[in-house]
Amino acid sequence: MPHIALNSAEPGIRGLLRYRPQTARPLSDLTEVLLRGPGTLARGERELIAAYVSALNDCRYCSSAHSACAAAQLPGGMALVDQVRADPASAPVPTKLKALLTIAAAVAHSGHAVTAEHVADARAAGATDMEIHDTVLIAAAFCMFNRYVDGLATIAPDDPALYAAGAQRLVTQGYLAPSADPSHES
Amino acid sequence: MPHIALNSAEPGIRGLLRYRPQTARPLSDLTEVLLRGPGTLARGERELIAAYVSALNDCRYCSSAHSACAAAQLPGGMALVDQVRADPASAPVPTKLKALLTIAAAVAHSGHAVTAEHVADARAAGATDMEIHDTVLIAAAFCMFNRYVDGLATIAPDDPALYAAGAQRLVTQGYLAPSADPSHES
Repeated sequence: MPHIALNSAEPGIRGLLRYRPQTARPLSDLTEVLLRGPGTLARGERELIAAYVSALNDCRYCSSAHSACAAAQLPGGMALVDQVRADPASAPVPTKLKALLTIAAAVAHSGHAVTAEHVADARAAGATDMEIHDTVLIAAAFCMFNRYVDGLATIAPDDPALYAAGAQRLVTQGYLAPSADPSHES
Repeated sequence: MPHIALNSAEPGIRGLLRYRPQTARPLSDLTEVLLRGPGTLARGERELIAAYVSALNDCRYCSSAHSACAAAQLPGGMALVDQVRADPASAPVPTKLKALLTIAAAVAHSGHAVTAEHVADARAAGATDMEIHDTVLIAAAFCMFNRYVDGLATIAPDDPALYAAGAQRLVTQGYLAPSADPSHES
């Protein structure tokens, strides 16, 4: 049960966005730019970074939601997402993405944990400065979202089908689309 | 030296906002709403939560900048900010603010670290649900900003006078004002 009385039964961050529209707008704008805006990292790769960090932070709602978004946009689907979440070093993803995931894991621990060597490895694997920047900010942003969602004890549904349906909506409409009627939990 | 080649010599988050205007806008909007928008927590109290979390995360730039903003807006000035950062439990702040700082410290650790008892204590001390919400989101947001600023190894000046001058600008103009000419480091 959430720590505060929300004004809808929507799970995870959706209930929080409904509760506080003034902060919902910049939070949604940030997510849209980072995960779907113009950029050289594929949208599925960016969702994978978000899902991986959320899993490291043990945030069930965010890791389920963004794993579903990553799976919907990566050729390897959920099997690949599961491999990355279990052990990115051995997962069949490009070296560049592996190096970016290493940076993301460091960020989840602390900003100070990102070393010049991490960055040099990513650059040697072909990452641009903007890709490194965006990886750090995606990882940092999910350290916020995860704490927001769990710090207020929001509900995380169990049914994977709900996250898959949500991913279909996010993949086609993005993070700025008005969400469904709050009277229907989903 | 920053991990990536920025396009200005501005320190801390200012150089990052300059580098990536697309993410700068929602980040600045979020900060303005949370730290200065309409609300029942005093602006100085909100800055104090931001400064405290940034200190817990060992982010020198953010803790210096927001300590200066808190000091400029709280009757106790920097002496009070220093006391809170050293030991909020014994600092001369109202019981409600103390309870909110306890929640903020839990968020800095993990969203899961916020307990029903933390929330009940804050409510018993007079905190509203919106104040509890905003405290969690301020703390979570600074877990993002701190990781963003340190994860890219931005520069944090030593001179307290620079942060005090920055605070005067932020307190009077807010977080949405265009920043100074990037050719002048400050």
